[in-house]
Amino acid sequence: MKSIKVIAFDADDTLFINEPYFEETEKKFCGLMENYLSHQSLSAAVFKHQVDNLPLYGYGIKSYILSMIQTAIEVSDGTVSVKLIQKIIDLGKELLQKPIVLLDGVEETLKALQGNYKLVVATKGDLKDQQRKLHDSGLGHYFHHIEVMADKKELNYNKLLSRLDIEPHEFFMIGNSLKSDVLPVLNIGGYACHVPFKTTWAHEMIDHEIDHDNFYEIKKLNEIIPILS
Amino acid sequence: MKSIKVIAFDADDTLFINEPYFEETEKKFCGLMENYLSHQSLSAAVFKHQVDNLPLYGYGIKSYILSMIQTAIEVSDGTVSVKLIQKIIDLGKELLQKPIVLLDGVEETLKALQGNYKLVVATKGDLKDQQRKLHDSGLGHYFHHIEVMADKKELNYNKLLSRLDIEPHEFFMIGNSLKSDVLPVLNIGGYACHVPFKTTWAHEMIDHEIDHDNFYEIKKLNEIIPILS
Repeated sequence: MKSIKVIAFDADDTLFINEPYFEETEKKFCGLMENYLSHQSLSAAVFKHQVDNLPLYGYGIKSYILSMIQTAIEVSDGTVSVKLIQKIIDLGKELLQKPIVLLDGVEETLKALQGNYKLVVATKGDLKDQQRKLHDSGLGHYFHHIEVMADKKELNYNKLLSRLDIEPHEFFMIGNSLKSDVLPVLNIGGYACHVPFKTTWAHEMIDHEIDHDNFYEIKKLNEIIPILS
Repeated sequence: MKSIKVIAFDADDTLFINEPYFEETEKKFCGLMENYLSHQSLSAAVFKHQVDNLPLYGYGIKSYILSMIQTAIEVSDGTVSVKLIQKIIDLGKELLQKPIVLLDGVEETLKALQGNYKLVVATKGDLKDQQRKLHDSGLGHYFHHIEVMADKKELNYNKLLSRLDIEPHEFFMIGNSLKSDVLPVLNIGGYACHVPFKTTWAHEMIDHEIDHDNFYEIKKLNEIIPILS
């Protein structure tokens, strides 16, 4: 595609696995708290706190730890033990140190595209954590830079384009979230490609189909190579 | 100064007050915990946890909340009440919403420099929180962009210069921390100016004088205007 200058990749569940680690942690959290509520109700309560806390805490693991602690205090009506709070903190520290497992075809894709486009990572989440993950992934050298965004709305993408000094039609975003990686980019006039991952955080779900000239959908990341050749 | 293209400003305690808010919060935390230890010993324990947690949590208020919770659990040997943990979370949320109070001469300085240089904010801390503060400060329009850095070491500054596409001698950094805003910038060949603030976090202190051709020291931010004219 001739007009494209910059290809941006989402990180979590696009380059390497992420959501399964959160799910594993939440399962352990629910196990710790199962005397108080069912796993399903506990997960719903954590999710509510996460979303309520977003404006103040933003995304990322530290926010998640704090939301689990708040949930534990709330659903136990303040009767949960301090030992359990310590266990939640330990779960969070464990989550912060999970190994980085690349998804299929990632390295092949980056290798194929790196000479022809400026590649960047455009991810939400916590700055410290995302930089650690990119470092541990060994993929850092493929990217011109890592953009950790406070959110992935139209405004945030417009700011990114202005920093990259490019026009929307020169920008191609690839990611696993229709809500964060695809819709806002299409809305500002860019190109976007969806690579679904096997599991999606409830907050990232949308309930309608996308029909747009600049929209692509692939099953595995390396299917983007012929599209961009 | 003719060679300079980009002037970077630290944010916390350079553009607006920050450390006094942390000190106020810590005083309240020590008040909550004073049955267990003296204020001085509690502060030392929080500081130890903050520094120990830095590699995993990074800088910012969420890290600070988690370090206070850990301190409370540790110094009470797990006997602290869950109500008190909730109070620490509330203190953290309060800290995240403190009003932005600009320091003397900030707006005058930015106005005077904006036409002649590219101005950026280069700050450590939490992405979400720093963007909120810049937004609330009303200073956003003076800056080309906000760079939230995972740390302020030589490596981080070199990455920043490469993103800005400039050489070290074209970069001038202004901030209140000799350790973070001055020394690493001088070490990579840039210019740096120290604007001391009335209070400095222990982690940012250094124990020697600086003598360097590219080093400036001022008392109030607007004293930088004649230096850069």
